[in-house]
Amino acid sequence: MQQEQVHACVIPSTDPHIGEYTPGRWKTREWISGFTGSAGTVVITKDKAGLWTDSRYFLQAEEQLKDTGIDLYKDGLPETPAFSDWIASELSAGDCVGIEGDVYAASEAKSLIEYFSGKNLNVRTDFAPYDSLWENRPAIPANPAFVLPERFTGKSCRDKIKEVITDVNKNQADITILAALDTIAWLFNIRGNDVKYNPVCVSYAIVSEKETVLFIAPEKLTQEVSDYLQQEGVVVADYEKIAGYICSIPSGTKVLINPAKINYRLYSILSEHCTVKETTVHPADSLKSIKNTTEIAGIRNAMQKDGVAMVKFLIDLEKALKNNETITELDVEEKLRVYRSEQEFYFGESFETIAGYAAHGAIVHYAATPESNAAVLPDGILLIDSGAQYFDGTTDITRTVSTGQVSETIKQNFTYVLKGHIQLALAVFPAGTVGMQLDALARQFLWKAGQNFLHGTGHGVGCFLNVHEGPQSIRMNYNPVPLEPGMITSNEPGLYLAGEYGIRIENLLLTVKARTTDFGDFYAFETLTLCPVDTRLIDYSLLSPEEIGWLNDYHQKVYDQLAPLLSKEEAAWLKEIL
Amino acid sequence: MQQEQVHACVIPSTDPHIGEYTPGRWKTREWISGFTGSAGTVVITKDKAGLWTDSRYFLQAEEQLKDTGIDLYKDGLPETPAFSDWIASELSAGDCVGIEGDVYAASEAKSLIEYFSGKNLNVRTDFAPYDSLWENRPAIPANPAFVLPERFTGKSCRDKIKEVITDVNKNQADITILAALDTIAWLFNIRGNDVKYNPVCVSYAIVSEKETVLFIAPEKLTQEVSDYLQQEGVVVADYEKIAGYICSIPSGTKVLINPAKINYRLYSILSEHCTVKETTVHPADSLKSIKNTTEIAGIRNAMQKDGVAMVKFLIDLEKALKNNETITELDVEEKLRVYRSEQEFYFGESFETIAGYAAHGAIVHYAATPESNAAVLPDGILLIDSGAQYFDGTTDITRTVSTGQVSETIKQNFTYVLKGHIQLALAVFPAGTVGMQLDALARQFLWKAGQNFLHGTGHGVGCFLNVHEGPQSIRMNYNPVPLEPGMITSNEPGLYLAGEYGIRIENLLLTVKARTTDFGDFYAFETLTLCPVDTRLIDYSLLSPEEIGWLNDYHQKVYDQLAPLLSKEEAAWLKEIL
Repeated sequence: MQQEQVHACVIPSTDPHIGEYTPGRWKTREWISGFTGSAGTVVITKDKAGLWTDSRYFLQAEEQLKDTGIDLYKDGLPETPAFSDWIASELSAGDCVGIEGDVYAASEAKSLIEYFSGKNLNVRTDFAPYDSLWENRPAIPANPAFVLPERFTGKSCRDKIKEVITDVNKNQADITILAALDTIAWLFNIRGNDVKYNPVCVSYAIVSEKETVLFIAPEKLTQEVSDYLQQEGVVVADYEKIAGYICSIPSGTKVLINPAKINYRLYSILSEHCTVKETTVHPADSLKSIKNTTEIAGIRNAMQKDGVAMVKFLIDLEKALKNNETITELDVEEKLRVYRSEQEFYFGESFETIAGYAAHGAIVHYAATPESNAAVLPDGILLIDSGAQYFDGTTDITRTVSTGQVSETIKQNFTYVLKGHIQLALAVFPAGTVGMQLDALARQFLWKAGQNFLHGTGHGVGCFLNVHEGPQSIRMNYNPVPLEPGMITSNEPGLYLAGEYGIRIENLLLTVKARTTDFGDFYAFETLTLCPVDTRLIDYSLLSPEEIGWLNDYHQKVYDQLAPLLSKEEAAWLKEIL
Repeated sequence: MQQEQVHACVIPSTDPHIGEYTPGRWKTREWISGFTGSAGTVVITKDKAGLWTDSRYFLQAEEQLKDTGIDLYKDGLPETPAFSDWIASELSAGDCVGIEGDVYAASEAKSLIEYFSGKNLNVRTDFAPYDSLWENRPAIPANPAFVLPERFTGKSCRDKIKEVITDVNKNQADITILAALDTIAWLFNIRGNDVKYNPVCVSYAIVSEKETVLFIAPEKLTQEVSDYLQQEGVVVADYEKIAGYICSIPSGTKVLINPAKINYRLYSILSEHCTVKETTVHPADSLKSIKNTTEIAGIRNAMQKDGVAMVKFLIDLEKALKNNETITELDVEEKLRVYRSEQEFYFGESFETIAGYAAHGAIVHYAATPESNAAVLPDGILLIDSGAQYFDGTTDITRTVSTGQVSETIKQNFTYVLKGHIQLALAVFPAGTVGMQLDALARQFLWKAGQNFLHGTGHGVGCFLNVHEGPQSIRMNYNPVPLEPGMITSNEPGLYLAGEYGIRIENLLLTVKARTTDFGDFYAFETLTLCPVDTRLIDYSLLSPEEIGWLNDYHQKVYDQLAPLLSKEEAAWLKEIL
C-alpha cells in the first residue's frame, strides 16, 4: 500500500461474477483475515485493520479474528460506523482508497467512488496486490463444461440467443455483456462444476446480432462442447480476452448491462467509449425465470425423486428415534445426501443442508460442524432445509418435524407458520401482482401473535441452476418484478425463537394461469414440492376449513405421486402418517 | 400563439397549488374547451386542437366538445398517442411548445421539457395569454381566512413551525417553500373557504429558522387572524410577493421542496440561484399525517355526529321505500347534507356525494345531475359515498344498502367486499409496513372470484382538511411511506359491474400501537367510522367466525356510541337492524 500510495484498501467478499458462492480463487477476504463467513468486508489502513460483518457471524468472527490484529465491527448495531464512514474518518483529504474493481459490482463500486469523492478522497479501482502476496493462491476453477441436452432445457441455445437479442434491442441497445454465471449457463445450455452448489462454469458472454461470444478457458471445453457451441453459432474465446473484446466494440455502441451483475473493471472499460444502457433486470434473467413446458415437466419429475428421498429419510429418522439410536445433525445431512444421490440424474446438493435440532433451528443460516453437531433427541423439533441438483431440476425444501413430545406453544406456532404457508399457496392474484403484495398473506397469523420472520418469504429457483435466482421475490421489501406464469418461487415462512427452536415450512410454487375474467388475467400457484407436513405439530383448532382442505388435498397428491416410487412398507408408512 | 411564435400550447387541469380541486380562476382548460371533467389536457396547434381525458369522461367529453373543433383523444386506449407524442409528431424540429409554468407541478414540467428537448423542440414555460382573452375571468378566491383554535388542532402554529424547521434541517436544508394549501392551513392553524370541499386559503409559505412568511392576499386577513399570526411569530406578506421573496433568498441557500407540490414557475426562480433539495414526502406532510390526541378526540366526536346523520338518513330511506314515496339520487344527497348540517361544528361537505342507484353505482366517480338523477326503486342496491367537514374532523363514509329484493349473487359479491374490508380492519403488522403490503388483505376474496377493483383501497384523510391527503396510502401500487400510529386512512374495497351495480364499504381507520414483543413494535387499526353495515346484503355462510366476531363487535360499538345521540325511535330502529 505504501509503494502504491494507497492509504486504505477495501476487500469485499464478492468475485468477478458477483455470485452467491465465491470460488477459492477469489476468497481474498478469507485469506487475509481467516474469517470464513459468507458476508464480510475487510478494511486495512496503515495502522489499523477491521472486519465488518452482520449479526449472523458475530460469534464466529470474534473467534476467527483472535490474534489477527483485525478488529471486529458489528454491522447493524447503532454504534457501528459504516466501513466507508470509518475510512473517511481515518483518512485525510487527498488520501487514496484502493479497491479491486475486478471483484466489485459496478453499482457498488460507483456508489463507493461517489461517496469517497464527496469526502475528498481519491479511489484507485485497480488495487490488487494479492497475486504476489498470496502463496498457493487457488487457480481459477478449470473444471470441464458439459452440454445440458434439449430434453432438459426445452429450448436451443440458438433460440435463446435470438430472444435475448430481441429483448436487448427493445431496451434500445445493440449488444449486451453477461457476467452472471447462471445466466450464461442458461443461455448456452451448458453446465459446469466450478462453483459449490451452483452447476456453472466460470465465463463471460457478449451477445449481439453480429455475433455471440462465450469467453471461457479453453481447458474447460471438451470436443463435444466445442462442437456443440459451433453448431449453435457461438464464437468461443479465451476467458481472459473479455476486456480486449470490450475495448474493440465500436465507439458509441449502445451496450445493455445490469450494473449489479457486472464487475466494475469491465464496466469502466466499457463506459470509456460505449453508451451504457443500465437495467436492474436483465432480459436474459427475465427469460430464464419463465420456465418452459420441458423444464416444468423436468422439475415435476425432480420433485418426485426428491420427495422419495425425503420420505426415506423421515422413516429412518422415526426409526432411529423410536429405537433410541443416536442420530446427529450431520447424520441427517449425510442420510439426505445419500438418498438423493440414489435418484436418477442426481448431480449434487443445491446448497448446504441446514439440519438444526432445537435451539440450532433458531439460527437461520445454521450448518452443523463437527464441533456444533448435536444429537437429535426424542424431545422437541428438528428443522431440515435441504435440496439437490438433478439434471431435470433443482429442489429446495424445508420441513420441521417433531422428534418426540412437543408443547402446545410449539404446536400453536407451527400452525401459525403453516396457515401462512397455506394462504400463500392458495393465493389468486391479477396479472402484474408483485411479491410484496402477497407477502403479508404468509405473515398475517404470525403478526397477529406479535411474531415475524426476518427473511424473505420466497425466492426464485433455477432449473438445474442456482437455487437462489431472480428477478422475482416474495418479501417485505419492494421488488417491481411481477410474478409471471412459469416462474418457480419458494414459499417458506418461518419462526425463530433464539435459544429455543426454529420452524420453517418450505415448498416450491409454480405460478400458473388461473382464469381470465372481465377483470383481466388471474394467476395462482401450484405447489411443486412433494413431501408430507408433520401433522403431529398441527393444532387443528386453529385451521380454517379452507386450510384443512388444502392440507388434505396436498397430502393426497403427495401420496398419489410418491407411493408408486416407494416400497410397500414405505408407502404404508406414508399413508399412516398423513 | 403566432405573435409569440409558439407552435403548440398545452393547457392542463392543475393550478398554482397543484390541488385536487381547481378554483374557477384557474379553470383555463374548462374555459377554453367547455369540458368540465376534473381531469383532462387541452393541446392547441395552428390547425388542430385536442382534449386528452380518461375513460371516466369519454361520454361527457364527447358531448361537451361537440362543435368546438376540439378533437377527443381517449387516454388509456392502445391507439391513443400520449399528448406529448402527438405534439412531437405534429411539430417540426426547432418549433416551440408553450406551457404556463405557473399551473404545472415542477416535476411534471421538468419531464415535459426533457421529453420535448429530446425531440428537438423548444419549450416556453411562461406562455399564458389567457388574462387578456378570457372575458370575466374569475378572480383569485378572496374569502376570509379564520383561525382554527388549539382546542381543535392540539398544537400551536409556533410549535408546528419548530418541528418543521427541525425536519427541514434533517433534510440538509435551511429553508422550505410550501405551495400545497392543506399543508399551509395545517401549519398555521388557519382555515378558509377558497376551494370547494377543501377548507383552505389560497396562499404560499416559506419557513426558515430566520423567519416564517405566509404569503396571502391582505383582504383575506381579519384583524383577528392578523393578530393571531403576529402572536405566533409569523410574518405576513402579500400573495403576489412570493416570487420576489424567492429571488431574495441568498444565493446557494439549500431549499427543500417537493417538486410534485410546487409549481414550475416558483421552482425555476428558485433553482436559478439556490441549491434545491428535493423530497417526495415533505416533512410538513409527514407531521400533518400523524394526528395528535386532540385531533383524534375530535375525529371521534365528528364520527359520532356523522353516524347520527347517516342513521337518520337510512331511516328516511327505508321509510320512503316502504311507503312507495319517490326518493331520487339527488334527494339522497340533499337529505345527507341537511342531516349533517344540523350537527355541531358543521362546515360543509368534504367532497361531492356519490349516490348511485343500480347501474349508476358502477360508475366509480358518479355524481347525480338533474339529467342523470335516478329514482331509487325497491329493487337492487344503492351506493352512497359522502362525508363532511366539521371543525373537529373530516369524514368520508361509503355504505351500500339494499333497497328491496337482491339476488344471491349480489349478496355473495357484497360479502366478498365485506370480508376484505374486515380482514384489513383486523390486520396487525410490524412497524415499517407500507400500504402495498396490506392491500391484498382487502382484495384476496375478490381475486379468488376473478374480480377486482381498480382504485386504491385506502387514502389518508385530514383533520378538518382535505378528505384526500398523503403521504400514506393502501394501494396495489408501491408507496414507500409506512403506516404510522396516528395516521387516518380509509378502508374502502369495492366491486363495480358495469351496467349492473356497484358495491363499496368504506370506514376510516386509525393506526394504533398494538403491542411490543421481541420482534419489535406491532401496529393495528381502530375503525373510527360509526354506521351499520347492511346485514340484509350479507351471505353469512361465507364469513369466518373471526369475521362474524368483528361485525358483531363493530355493530355493538356503533350502537353504544350512537344510541345516546338518537331519539328513542331511531335507537330502536338501529337496534332492530343490527
